[in-house]
Amino acid sequence: MNRQEPLGIAVIGTGRMGADHVRRIDRVISGARVTAVVDLDAERAETVAAGVDGCTAHTDPAAAMAAADVDAVLIASPGPAHEAALLTAFEHDLPVLCEKPLTPDAASALRVVEAEQALGHRRVQVGFMRRYDAEYVRLKALLESGQLGRPLMLHNRHRNVASPPFFTSSMLISDSVAHEVDATRWLLGHEITAVTVLRPTPSAGAPDGLRDPQFVVLETDGGALSDVEIFVNCGFGYQVQAEAVCERGTARIGDGHDLVTHMAGRWGGTIAQDWAERFAQAYDDEVQAWVDTTRRGEVTGPSTWDGYAAAAVCEAGVRSLEEGGRVAVELAEKPPLYR
Amino acid sequence: MNRQEPLGIAVIGTGRMGADHVRRIDRVISGARVTAVVDLDAERAETVAAGVDGCTAHTDPAAAMAAADVDAVLIASPGPAHEAALLTAFEHDLPVLCEKPLTPDAASALRVVEAEQALGHRRVQVGFMRRYDAEYVRLKALLESGQLGRPLMLHNRHRNVASPPFFTSSMLISDSVAHEVDATRWLLGHEITAVTVLRPTPSAGAPDGLRDPQFVVLETDGGALSDVEIFVNCGFGYQVQAEAVCERGTARIGDGHDLVTHMAGRWGGTIAQDWAERFAQAYDDEVQAWVDTTRRGEVTGPSTWDGYAAAAVCEAGVRSLEEGGRVAVELAEKPPLYR
Amino acid sequence: MNRQEPLGIAVIGTGRMGADHVRRIDRVISGARVTAVVDLDAERAETVAAGVDGCTAHTDPAAAMAAADVDAVLIASPGPAHEAALLTAFEHDLPVLCEKPLTPDAASALRVVEAEQALGHRRVQVGFMRRYDAEYVRLKALLESGQLGRPLMLHNRHRNVASPPFFTSSMLISDSVAHEVDATRWLLGHEITAVTVLRPTPSAGAPDGLRDPQFVVLETDGGALSDVEIFVNCGFGYQVQAEAVCERGTARIGDGHDLVTHMAGRWGGTIAQDWAERFAQAYDDEVQAWVDTTRRGEVTGPSTWDGYAAAAVCEAGVRSLEEGGRVAVELAEKPPLYR
Amino acid sequence: MNRQEPLGIAVIGTGRMGADHVRRIDRVISGARVTAVVDLDAERAETVAAGVDGCTAHTDPAAAMAAADVDAVLIASPGPAHEAALLTAFEHDLPVLCEKPLTPDAASALRVVEAEQALGHRRVQVGFMRRYDAEYVRLKALLESGQLGRPLMLHNRHRNVASPPFFTSSMLISDSVAHEVDATRWLLGHEITAVTVLRPTPSAGAPDGLRDPQFVVLETDGGALSDVEIFVNCGFGYQVQAEAVCERGTARIGDGHDLVTHMAGRWGGTIAQDWAERFAQAYDDEVQAWVDTTRRGEVTGPSTWDGYAAAAVCEAGVRSLEEGGRVAVELAEKPPLYR
Repeated sequence: MNRQEPLGIAVIGTGRMGADHVRRIDRVISGARVTAVVDLDAERAETVAAGVDGCTAHTDPAAAMAAADVDAVLIASPGPAHEAALLTAFEHDLPVLCEKPLTPDAASALRVVEAEQALGHRRVQVGFMRRYDAEYVRLKALLESGQLGRPLMLHNRHRNVASPPFFTSSMLISDSVAHEVDATRWLLGHEITAVTVLRPTPSAGAPDGLRDPQFVVLETDGGALSDVEIFVNCGFGYQVQAEAVCERGTARIGDGHDLVTHMAGRWGGTIAQDWAERFAQAYDDEVQAWVDTTRRGEVTGPSTWDGYAAAAVCEAGVRSLEEGGRVAVELAEKPPLYR
Repeated sequence: MNRQEPLGIAVIGTGRMGADHVRRIDRVISGARVTAVVDLDAERAETVAAGVDGCTAHTDPAAAMAAADVDAVLIASPGPAHEAALLTAFEHDLPVLCEKPLTPDAASALRVVEAEQALGHRRVQVGFMRRYDAEYVRLKALLESGQLGRPLMLHNRHRNVASPPFFTSSMLISDSVAHEVDATRWLLGHEITAVTVLRPTPSAGAPDGLRDPQFVVLETDGGALSDVEIFVNCGFGYQVQAEAVCERGTARIGDGHDLVTHMAGRWGGTIAQDWAERFAQAYDDEVQAWVDTTRRGEVTGPSTWDGYAAAAVCEAGVRSLEEGGRVAVELAEKPPLYR
Repeated sequence: MNRQEPLGIAVIGTGRMGADHVRRIDRVISGARVTAVVDLDAERAETVAAGVDGCTAHTDPAAAMAAADVDAVLIASPGPAHEAALLTAFEHDLPVLCEKPLTPDAASALRVVEAEQALGHRRVQVGFMRRYDAEYVRLKALLESGQLGRPLMLHNRHRNVASPPFFTSSMLISDSVAHEVDATRWLLGHEITAVTVLRPTPSAGAPDGLRDPQFVVLETDGGALSDVEIFVNCGFGYQVQAEAVCERGTARIGDGHDLVTHMAGRWGGTIAQDWAERFAQAYDDEVQAWVDTTRRGEVTGPSTWDGYAAAAVCEAGVRSLEEGGRVAVELAEKPPLYR
Repeated sequence: MNRQEPLGIAVIGTGRMGADHVRRIDRVISGARVTAVVDLDAERAETVAAGVDGCTAHTDPAAAMAAADVDAVLIASPGPAHEAALLTAFEHDLPVLCEKPLTPDAASALRVVEAEQALGHRRVQVGFMRRYDAEYVRLKALLESGQLGRPLMLHNRHRNVASPPFFTSSMLISDSVAHEVDATRWLLGHEITAVTVLRPTPSAGAPDGLRDPQFVVLETDGGALSDVEIFVNCGFGYQVQAEAVCERGTARIGDGHDLVTHMAGRWGGTIAQDWAERFAQAYDDEVQAWVDTTRRGEVTGPSTWDGYAAAAVCEAGVRSLEEGGRVAVELAEKPPLYR
């Protein structure tokens, strides 16, 4: 598929994230266009399609994927719908960019791993977009340069202004810490072997019954520790910070600010309020990278296996949250396709 | 020109800057494509054109602008060639993105202003790309919000690792400080009324005979001062910093860094080495903004008048550098087109 | 003892810390003088005494404390010698500034608590000098102001360039983390109820057999968590950092730097190499505060109880380090004297 | 005067600064005591003396200096009274710490220089306390190390929350910029050869008629430039910042902050409101250094010549402020005593 004409993409799901990807492909990304959108809500699909030249609306993913002008699929529907959409895409042998989580639990994620293995080649890039964030990319490059020696610990902070109404205590692990799970695996190049979730007294700012904040300790097969503060009702801003502590030094990202003011006895800057603001460039780069590799007939980026591993770790994390104590992570054997 | 098909652009000049714009339009920018490139060096034009699908190579700007698939012109040739290219574009009534300087001196810049006025509508966006840099944009928005009160002073730092071999003492003003001239006018909304260039002992790191660094004081018709340290052989990095001192506080940009390390008794981060690294996003946004407004049939952004005003101020600055002391800036009356 | 003449102090122990206190009282602190020094090594005591006008040398603490010109005692001998020196001081009813640890284990610390109770008034200020550090003092004041809401978590970093040859894995807890144990209790106003020590793979920079770094999680009776990275062979500097995460915001100390350089592609500053450099002002203020309150006949600052509580927590920490898992902390009932 | 008993000091002037020095010597500084205070306001002198053990009150400086227990003099009276007090101290051959300015103008300062020369040895340390500030000391040490190469420019910021009612436009130069005049001479080791004072439109926050802010450019005999923003009604805090731009890098002081908070969408810290807060340690160290050298019979620190040079530069600055344009500085020949 080394082609001149733009890549035709079917976007499955037109909620906040799906609609944002449609906008991105239509306006920001070069070399691709949205040829189909899919949503169970037919009206919403029609509205989104109407704004894009040459785009059709569907309620059934299979119908969209069968269309002649669909060369690739971007899955942005809710997690429980991912498995079916992925398997349909495999039937058409279409490349897929699948928003995280790959699927909601480790068992279903492993089924997708097995199905992709049966195809015999990688078709899925999972939406762990921190791997495309300029700061994470610099941190990863620094760690790989060996300048700081071997990483020993990773301290992570993940803070949101407020959680949406449907958010549960387990979702702090499976929805939020999932990013740090992948970032830990990717930055350190280790698998995670055990998870402990600690529960300080909830903040008065958290909705009743929500265990927020939580403090998560991940142990890796390389002997490193990665701790994560997750605090989804911190009230003051959206912050993602990471500090890698290595044998000869540390490196920290997430403090970067571009405008500093001095007034009224205080100096400082503003804090992003939202992931869409903080990671705008990473989302653009992620989709652009996928469009470019897809047009060259390649699949790179976070794999189905990465999605499965995150699901398995989060599942252990939720057990630690609910039952207390340390929970070991058990992973299936890694298929050759992902080595 | 409210159109679905991509905007066809002729790029005049295929040196470092021109070739970079060709790459940007081809790969980064959506909604536009390069349909023609022009260079006096026919071989270089051919090489660049060969890398872009459906792009023709020319040695004569007029021939390129006459082509049916050319809807707009991006001028990235050396400054002395700009006037002729602009006037040719005016003959075809084509929208133009013209790299700074508009032209090399105030007299020729004023001729372009007059020619555009004769057309009766704006056709030119000048390449003052700092107006598209995320940090400058935030600083401008903060100043306009009135939170800090009226701006009284602007302190600017502009540092390059090393100057190219052909760089002269006047080029520190007309090529480098030109950016701060426009930034001062744009951020403060004032015209510049006088320039004083001070010459400390040159650095041992500067080539023989080059007056580097220089310290420039700009006075404005709003009673503000803007000082500029220009140091093009600072040796250690590329830095562009600005601090606006206002009645109720100050705001500073250019210290922002995204990765901080602690090792070997030192903490800190790296410094960009180059404008292409520091302002990559601003160039992308600048060209994208131009493509988008052009497709809607509009012209926004820095105008021909802005290019002329910068030329006039720099000309006064070069006189202050050469003759010493304060030199008043004389501007023609501002035509209604630019109000 | 509301007096004009300087306070006469016997300094017990003339090693690095004791000699530094002698210098401080002699040269920095107003209102006090060193009238006696004590060391098992008679020669070292003589040498130190010779440098101070009117100072006598002793090998027996009891003899020094019996001297007419000794009004107060500063204990800076090794931890195992503290209990005897404290009990002797109690016999003479002398005010004591006792370097941390109060004593090496919880049982002996509790005996000192009981002896002071028997006296019926506080006589001991324990050398937890972070309570006098300007940054900690500001953090404490901010937390008490209520601006940030209730503290939920405290993230601590404690890094040394290299550990001395005699340092053992348990000493990372009992000697180093002891500071964070007290800082956690003091900043949050909570008692610590459980300790978990995690052991990542040791750094290649740590001496053979030393478990360095360690990661310690403290749970408090106020439902807060306090995590401590202790890394005594980090190689790059001495760093003490703390971030309090509260219901409405966070506050961080320990990043403060006073000289920032930009050169050779890097920006940043230097990192202190040593606690004596980082906390010089805190030590001065600590001793001055003690001299001043002593002259007014008062005892304030960290109490014997604070020393005991730290000993008990560290003892639990060492057990967690050695046996793995979470170890609950059991404290005796708090005597009325310390309420 | 290599002595054990504390140095007896007469403090001339008991206003805010004098009273603060009395407190400092009494409570902070070791090795010295206040034996006499002098003030034209007899009642104020009595009140201050009453708070210090063994201290007498005077209205005549000569009477105080004649007292047997006065070994040294600290002059903190208003500037116009300095010359007479200094000459009286010279008659008694007493060491003097004289608050800046040495005297209010260059002619009187030169008379003091000549009188000290006639004595044949240095007796005066001028109160340029920035030379004792930890940050300035580190900057000076870095410049002298040669790491950054030769200094080319010095950018200074000097901001006060609000000016006192009696402050005039010239006092921004002679009272405030005087510190940067000395700092420039001391940091660079150059004499200042010309001064230009620029006057942007005054801030709405400045009292009617006060030219605030001002922007001052100092030229040195080493070919360096030093620019100073002086803004005494900035409203938001007390800030003293300096950036030395050298051949191989830059170094900046004055951004140092020890407590950073994140809350309500903003990160940052507080700004000192006052020189007494910002430079407390420098004042302590200054007086301690003077006490220590005085007791050893030495005179070090800023000399009478430094005081004279500052007076001459400020006088030129005030002329530039009033008459506009660049004013050359004329210095007398430097006597051998100060070389």
